[in-house]
Amino acid sequence: MPITVFSHEHFMREALRLARRAEAENEIPIGAVVVAGNQIVGKGYNQTERLHDVTAHAEMLALTAASNFFGSKYLTDCTLYCTIEPCPMCAGAVAWAQIPRLVYGAPDPKKGYSLFTPNLLPRKVKVVSGILEQECAQLMRQFFLSRRVR
Amino acid sequence: MPITVFSHEHFMREALRLARRAEAENEIPIGAVVVAGNQIVGKGYNQTERLHDVTAHAEMLALTAASNFFGSKYLTDCTLYCTIEPCPMCAGAVAWAQIPRLVYGAPDPKKGYSLFTPNLLPRKVKVVSGILEQECAQLMRQFFLSRRVR
Repeated sequence: MPITVFSHEHFMREALRLARRAEAENEIPIGAVVVAGNQIVGKGYNQTERLHDVTAHAEMLALTAASNFFGSKYLTDCTLYCTIEPCPMCAGAVAWAQIPRLVYGAPDPKKGYSLFTPNLLPRKVKVVSGILEQECAQLMRQFFLSRRVR
Repeated sequence: MPITVFSHEHFMREALRLARRAEAENEIPIGAVVVAGNQIVGKGYNQTERLHDVTAHAEMLALTAASNFFGSKYLTDCTLYCTIEPCPMCAGAVAWAQIPRLVYGAPDPKKGYSLFTPNLLPRKVKVVSGILEQECAQLMRQFFLSRRVR
């Protein structure tokens, strides 16, 4: 068996991989995974364009996938990893799902939930930010830059 | 053709009808419809239990249905009617969908978006509340009362 190290970076790389899949489909490049016991139990990448649906954010799709995996709407032993700080909609979903840990890569200076009010997440939720921040942010910058040039 | 009067009450009655369907399925009784040009283009009722999914709020399902109807993620000519004040997750979705009008029945004194910050909705969104408020609130009260008694 290979030696594996499960770390925030490890799971954020998976989220980044999904973000790149979004980019390849001309979607805003954001990815997310839900992890329980060092296992990925839900994945999502932004599909708002393909599905014509504003609710199809990476985080929402990953949460729904994880709930399907467990057959439970509560994800009390899970961690949500996402490349960009969640918006209020996604933060609201994290709160409803009773997820105790949120790890994100780069802040969202326009739509991040913390710009509205950090209270969107219950105080007991542990938030870690800045994991692979440069890669997560760079993917977004490149995407919007390439669109502007076209 | 019958004489019909399209009013806030008319569409809220439709949302209430959906809320009662949720109740019949042992879901928290909240219903929602999306209306464009006096036509209902999306319906939803709370299905978080059945689907094991916290994102399956009435409002979210109605928004997704309306987006499917139009093949567009933006619902710029629509009004969202819901029996109870939306939570932050649903308010966030309303903002993303660029819905210009929100009509709700009764406030949610625990999870209503306005308790967190009214800024979750853009300022330009017209909000009307108190339509069939008593019926909307009573349905919720009865539901939780009947559960406590059991």
